[in-house]
Amino acid sequence: MTKNETPYDRLSTRLREIGTLSAIEALLGWDQETMMPPKAGSFRAEELSLVSRLLHDRRTDPALGELLGECEGDPAIAGDACRAADLRELRRDYGRATRIPSDLVAELSETSSRAMQAWKNARQENDFSSFLPWLEKQISLNRDKAECLGAPEGGEPYDALLEEYEPGMTASEAAALFDPLREALSSFLSEIAESPVRHDPGFVEAKVPVEAQQEFNLQVAKRLGYDLEAGRLDVSVHPFTEGLGPGDTRITTRYREDRPADALASTMHETGHALYEQGLPKDRLPGHPLSQAASMGIHESQSRLWENQVGRSRPFWEWALPLAREILGAPVESYSVDDVYRSVNAVIPKLIRVESDEATYNLHIMLRFDLELAMFRGDLSPRDLPAAWNDRMKRDLGLRVPDDRRGCLQDIHWSVGAFGYFPTYTLGNLYAAQMWEAARREILDLDRRIACGEFGSLLEWLRAGVHAHGRRYPAGELGRRITGAEPGYEPLLRYLEGKLRPIYRL
Amino acid sequence: MTKNETPYDRLSTRLREIGTLSAIEALLGWDQETMMPPKAGSFRAEELSLVSRLLHDRRTDPALGELLGECEGDPAIAGDACRAADLRELRRDYGRATRIPSDLVAELSETSSRAMQAWKNARQENDFSSFLPWLEKQISLNRDKAECLGAPEGGEPYDALLEEYEPGMTASEAAALFDPLREALSSFLSEIAESPVRHDPGFVEAKVPVEAQQEFNLQVAKRLGYDLEAGRLDVSVHPFTEGLGPGDTRITTRYREDRPADALASTMHETGHALYEQGLPKDRLPGHPLSQAASMGIHESQSRLWENQVGRSRPFWEWALPLAREILGAPVESYSVDDVYRSVNAVIPKLIRVESDEATYNLHIMLRFDLELAMFRGDLSPRDLPAAWNDRMKRDLGLRVPDDRRGCLQDIHWSVGAFGYFPTYTLGNLYAAQMWEAARREILDLDRRIACGEFGSLLEWLRAGVHAHGRRYPAGELGRRITGAEPGYEPLLRYLEGKLRPIYRL
Repeated sequence: MTKNETPYDRLSTRLREIGTLSAIEALLGWDQETMMPPKAGSFRAEELSLVSRLLHDRRTDPALGELLGECEGDPAIAGDACRAADLRELRRDYGRATRIPSDLVAELSETSSRAMQAWKNARQENDFSSFLPWLEKQISLNRDKAECLGAPEGGEPYDALLEEYEPGMTASEAAALFDPLREALSSFLSEIAESPVRHDPGFVEAKVPVEAQQEFNLQVAKRLGYDLEAGRLDVSVHPFTEGLGPGDTRITTRYREDRPADALASTMHETGHALYEQGLPKDRLPGHPLSQAASMGIHESQSRLWENQVGRSRPFWEWALPLAREILGAPVESYSVDDVYRSVNAVIPKLIRVESDEATYNLHIMLRFDLELAMFRGDLSPRDLPAAWNDRMKRDLGLRVPDDRRGCLQDIHWSVGAFGYFPTYTLGNLYAAQMWEAARREILDLDRRIACGEFGSLLEWLRAGVHAHGRRYPAGELGRRITGAEPGYEPLLRYLEGKLRPIYRL
Repeated sequence: MTKNETPYDRLSTRLREIGTLSAIEALLGWDQETMMPPKAGSFRAEELSLVSRLLHDRRTDPALGELLGECEGDPAIAGDACRAADLRELRRDYGRATRIPSDLVAELSETSSRAMQAWKNARQENDFSSFLPWLEKQISLNRDKAECLGAPEGGEPYDALLEEYEPGMTASEAAALFDPLREALSSFLSEIAESPVRHDPGFVEAKVPVEAQQEFNLQVAKRLGYDLEAGRLDVSVHPFTEGLGPGDTRITTRYREDRPADALASTMHETGHALYEQGLPKDRLPGHPLSQAASMGIHESQSRLWENQVGRSRPFWEWALPLAREILGAPVESYSVDDVYRSVNAVIPKLIRVESDEATYNLHIMLRFDLELAMFRGDLSPRDLPAAWNDRMKRDLGLRVPDDRRGCLQDIHWSVGAFGYFPTYTLGNLYAAQMWEAARREILDLDRRIACGEFGSLLEWLRAGVHAHGRRYPAGELGRRITGAEPGYEPLLRYLEGKLRPIYRL
């Protein structure tokens, strides 16, 4: 201990080490998905498990708890709003980390890796029954986990899991947002289904060589503000963003020669996540909650806002289409801005969540939320999941599910025990729509700026309102601060209807 | 502790963790040189320093020493030659790791990173005087390190450093090999200089697009036996091989449009290193000395053998030229096997070590070895290094050194305190030449096999004789076992003269 070192300094040293180990864990994960040769797989699991153990030891170290206690008793810190928020979040993390016994941590991790393998096989073989025992085990273990963590006052076990991804949100609050949204979306989708307008897939299915798409995607990501001196864009099977520490936020996307618009949407989505990561004050406070994202919903709001509100807007394509023509050449030359705008906004209900359009996407999410909540509450037996799933798909999206592979086996989340994760996708869409309304009010000439490829004012607005704060404010409060409103489903609905009614002449 | 766990099992658990952390360190290093965005540099240094601290703690843990002692007292292990060798090497590693006080470890590491920066600037500015204080400091710190480590009986301080890279070798033994080699090489090079034969650079300077070179290099590396399911080939400023653990050995190379032969030589060199790494029994014994390379000299013998003895042979080009024509196309179409063979074997003394041909290369190394040894012994003051360097370049290679940038400032090694590293390059060449003679005796029709692109018998021979043993035998003994002879300079000389005399019509 150095002279004049305060307990908060000593806390920072420990957090810095935890932050550094987390960044190493992130590199191991990034490399695994992008660069690692196939035969390295089993050893990589060993590396990840070692780092995860080193992290767990440090996050649950009683000495960390003591330091935290000392800091909490320091009136100088209590009087500093930033540091006080930092301590509030640290206490939350420390509590969550220490409340789960090591045996259960180990069993959850072991089960997740085996259940994920079982899920992969089950999906491939279209055999729900072989996955069922693993689903049951995950639900049971995650009930135990929820019990250890403890639900918020007046809450239910599921809330303790949701809290992991969306701190401060409960299942009943989420349901109160989702229920009217589903109602309204379902009836709006029926209107669209009856519209006489049918789109030619056009731009969405133009055939463009992958190299040209890569160049185009890179140029767009750069123009949105993604700092490539502090990041990189690679290819992976499932696109993702990985924050690897200060100065290092990497994104991936995937290309198909006949789906250039999907690749761009995916790149803009990940760019949105990456802009958030690059805007967090990591340099100043490595490992501190203040340098971390507020919630998964807020994270998703950043990706969705750039992917959808920006990337599917007419002004964006006024700027992007000439660039697309220049880089992608002949395959896109015949399309007008209007053609592309209509093409990337087509509403076509699909069986697969990740292939869905902006409007139906949320129905996919709410269905999953309802079903996982019902399983958690004991209202739905896991063995009845396929029937419940198929029933809801018919009711909400009007689609018949031909097999479980394209039904309840399509997503990885439940296999790895990520209950409470799904709702954050739609929460992200709700936050994004609210932020978009606020941005349009507050940034002069936003459409014109976007049409000129000037994205800096929007980015700066998000930097100041969202990114710079890290976890200083709980997600709900952060949303209120930037949008001036309570969370609600109406802005998303206004946004979707405002765009889609003219397109579908409704 | 589990029931029935022996001390050796517990030792293995600890080594496995050390091996896993080393592999993580290797990934951080590999990523830094190949993928990492520039702004991540300073945080990466922090990650590396954390892992290095975690490793140091584990390698010097007294509990490891106690376990080692228990195993050493176990007669069952003493009777098992493999395990006994493993313990011998572990004792050596543990001794070396624990003999250097932590303060000195930290100072060496801090100095190396600052001295390397100073060296980079000094080289760029061609300003030896700004590097001199760092060189002096490195020598002084490394003298302290050598004193802590202790020289072998009858040896000198430098030997304690050489021992790090080439266990069992002393400076005087190296000098006894090098002195006659230098003598013989120098006079042979004078003969070549007077030969009437002058080469058209030809193939070596053919202009070939980098993409085509990449494809060609990849095909060759694969054909030599490099398992790309357990590795990958990327680009970096300085080519290197990194063993990242079981199933993961990655190589890099660099391309210049007008130097296709250099890129191939570099790829074959790194492939040689990678074949050794892939042949070590890492799966079976992660973290154990038995799964590690015997010495830097032995490692270098594997890279040199594939780069030179194979890659600059006529039979190799009989196989490779048709492939080169197929992949590289027009730029190489006009060359015959003989043209290429002469072109890649041209002897042209150069100022820069890494650009040198196979024959003059060793003169570069021996010069560095003599000078670092003289500085270490106190026979040469670091301030007189430039004059001594230039004098030797004139004497040994007949070249006038125009500036220190192309003289004593060209290499990174001394800036990072890697004294004792240089001689392993030439030791590698000596081992390679001896192994090559033995392989030609023992493998039926080796030339014909190579001319058919059948490299498997040579690889299998190296796997069985060198790779599979790890550190079971000290380097010298390993050499004797596979070649049946004591280390000597004659095989290298025979190899070079046997090839170059006909080419130069001497």
